[in-house]
Amino acid sequence: MKNPELWLRKGADRRLRGGHQWIYSNEIDSKRSNLSSFSAGDQVVVKAAGGEILATALMEPQSLICARVFAEGERHYDLELLCERLQQAQDLRRSLFTEDYYRMVYGDSDRLSGIVVDRFADYLVLQLNTAGVERYQALLVEALVAVCQPRGILLRADSRSRRELGLEQRTEVVYGEVPEQVPLIENGVEFMAPIMTGQKTGWFYDHRDNRATLRRYVQESESRVLDTYSYVGGWGVQAAAFGAAEVVCVDSSAAALEAVAENARCNGVSDRVSVLQGQATVVMEQLIAAGERFDIVILDPPAFVQRRRDLGKGRKAYRRINELAMQLLQPGGLLVSASCSMQLELSDLLLELQSAARRTGHFVQVLETGHQGRDHPQHPAIPETAYLKAVFARVNPVS
Amino acid sequence: MKNPELWLRKGADRRLRGGHQWIYSNEIDSKRSNLSSFSAGDQVVVKAAGGEILATALMEPQSLICARVFAEGERHYDLELLCERLQQAQDLRRSLFTEDYYRMVYGDSDRLSGIVVDRFADYLVLQLNTAGVERYQALLVEALVAVCQPRGILLRADSRSRRELGLEQRTEVVYGEVPEQVPLIENGVEFMAPIMTGQKTGWFYDHRDNRATLRRYVQESESRVLDTYSYVGGWGVQAAAFGAAEVVCVDSSAAALEAVAENARCNGVSDRVSVLQGQATVVMEQLIAAGERFDIVILDPPAFVQRRRDLGKGRKAYRRINELAMQLLQPGGLLVSASCSMQLELSDLLLELQSAARRTGHFVQVLETGHQGRDHPQHPAIPETAYLKAVFARVNPVS
Repeated sequence: MKNPELWLRKGADRRLRGGHQWIYSNEIDSKRSNLSSFSAGDQVVVKAAGGEILATALMEPQSLICARVFAEGERHYDLELLCERLQQAQDLRRSLFTEDYYRMVYGDSDRLSGIVVDRFADYLVLQLNTAGVERYQALLVEALVAVCQPRGILLRADSRSRRELGLEQRTEVVYGEVPEQVPLIENGVEFMAPIMTGQKTGWFYDHRDNRATLRRYVQESESRVLDTYSYVGGWGVQAAAFGAAEVVCVDSSAAALEAVAENARCNGVSDRVSVLQGQATVVMEQLIAAGERFDIVILDPPAFVQRRRDLGKGRKAYRRINELAMQLLQPGGLLVSASCSMQLELSDLLLELQSAARRTGHFVQVLETGHQGRDHPQHPAIPETAYLKAVFARVNPVS
Repeated sequence: MKNPELWLRKGADRRLRGGHQWIYSNEIDSKRSNLSSFSAGDQVVVKAAGGEILATALMEPQSLICARVFAEGERHYDLELLCERLQQAQDLRRSLFTEDYYRMVYGDSDRLSGIVVDRFADYLVLQLNTAGVERYQALLVEALVAVCQPRGILLRADSRSRRELGLEQRTEVVYGEVPEQVPLIENGVEFMAPIMTGQKTGWFYDHRDNRATLRRYVQESESRVLDTYSYVGGWGVQAAAFGAAEVVCVDSSAAALEAVAENARCNGVSDRVSVLQGQATVVMEQLIAAGERFDIVILDPPAFVQRRRDLGKGRKAYRRINELAMQLLQPGGLLVSASCSMQLELSDLLLELQSAARRTGHFVQVLETGHQGRDHPQHPAIPETAYLKAVFARVNPVS
């Protein structure tokens, strides 16, 4: 079966030739290709204005990004292609890690646009984040079973991006059996991830290496650590396991804090981990008022900038939490300040950090800057594949 | 003694209030402060147009940056201030490292603008990189002796920035006794650094953490490694010590390659480290022609962009060496691509990497991005204090 053609306007092939994989609706030659004649998930051969075949793509005619390339030249989005890509993705992770706990598929960076797969040993959690891949769910599950032989696959089709695209929200077991929670090991520390009901896929593998970096700061002293936006304790429980004298985890979710307690118990550090339920900013204000001080404060908030138009407001929110954190640090304390907002550049985050420092009378030295982990590779032609920043900074009063 | 005043123009205080430490000559109110009345090294009280005292600074009236702040409010650039700053700088490093091998002073980030000190246990190598600090050499040596009790201090006053400022070029022992070479340990590997005659201070501590990152890629396989611009083998000898099966170091300097051989011998890896003398690009072309392939290629060139106006030419040079490196990699090999050009943003380096990939038919996944080490902290208000990038990327043929 031959794929229909999608004709680009003159000059609109340039980004694609540079290796980007997205095609915007205003790049289509609407005389030769009528977007309304396509349905989401249709496979199309992408042609430059001069007639050259550039790539094959999946259509999303309703979206601003109206097609996403899945192969250079002509191919079919079939079991063979999916198995090949999944195998490559798994090979890469297995070359990086000794155990099967990782993001196995990271969308465009693994040439599987719209698809995310997190692996928890025998269990896979799958996200379908674009209209284009929605149609291929069954095929993808078949390919995942062939490549990974999992006990179960959970589909978490309840992402924000799906909601924005008007796609159905659902969570379902699409293969085998899947428990409510699954075990995982990160940096030698054991956790249970609430894959059915937790945030996103249930766990944030992206901070693995940044949490490993935390180890050297925790080990250097008998640290008192504050972990804000703690979720199930990824940072906080690891800090305790690495040797922190005392860890306080703050989250607004009672379920998350129950999981913190359980994860602390698993690792034998319950006596050094406590929890506080509430909004992070409110709790930080209370702690400041109470005169509490910490050696390390971790800020790992949800994305304050979801869309470009929220950048100004979001930057203020980052500045605000960094101001609060600096006031909670002992002189010479360590601030771990993260942002998962793709639209917020590292340089912007540093400016907000500096602004927070000036407003609270501090002098800041950025010791290290971490990014998303190795299982979330960045595609160098697609800046959108890089989103995570984690700044490790020494904070002192201005003298 | 009261310091003379340096008056800023209206509005020119903003950057300073934000925490930056540099004052540009066009920010001076020339009616109230005549630049030609100052000499390099003069201490001045910086005043906002409204009369408020902002900071104290050292003058460099001949430079575009005509003054550099050394303290907020009024202070004197004296032994007490220098000892206080050096002690803070040393305390920070000692909290980060167990042995005294590190950049102990990193200019503005340690509030010692223009000063760099690298520590090799009992020996210090000092750089004075601005006209403002030139006058304080004796005072600084006195402070270093008081804080560090070194056996010897070597002044390397032969930097490019000095030459550009028209400052005298000299290398001299300014305290105690200093040998030609000094031992150091980095990531558990032993080296001799040629502090008298080597590049810069004799050793590049800035890549310490990036070289540590290399360890996990070397260990995963019996790797064959190409280390270009190897200098004395910082990357290459560590790769061998970490377990690489074979390492080839390329440098244009015979002296550097002799040092590679000596450093390999020290660590018992001589049988796995060989050297090739020549220009990196020429040698890489020869290796490509000879059909040689490597599992890991390391590109750690000197700064190809020294000034903003060289950006275009420099970017091409980065692209070129990355093209060559990709052609020398086995499928699935690892490219370690560094840049120490302050003017080249990480995003620019990634674009050149991508461009090199397209031109050579490769698909690149950026696994990790490293920066300068913890002993080179970044000042968040001074972007110029961040310069080093090291991209770790998986490279595969396009399929």
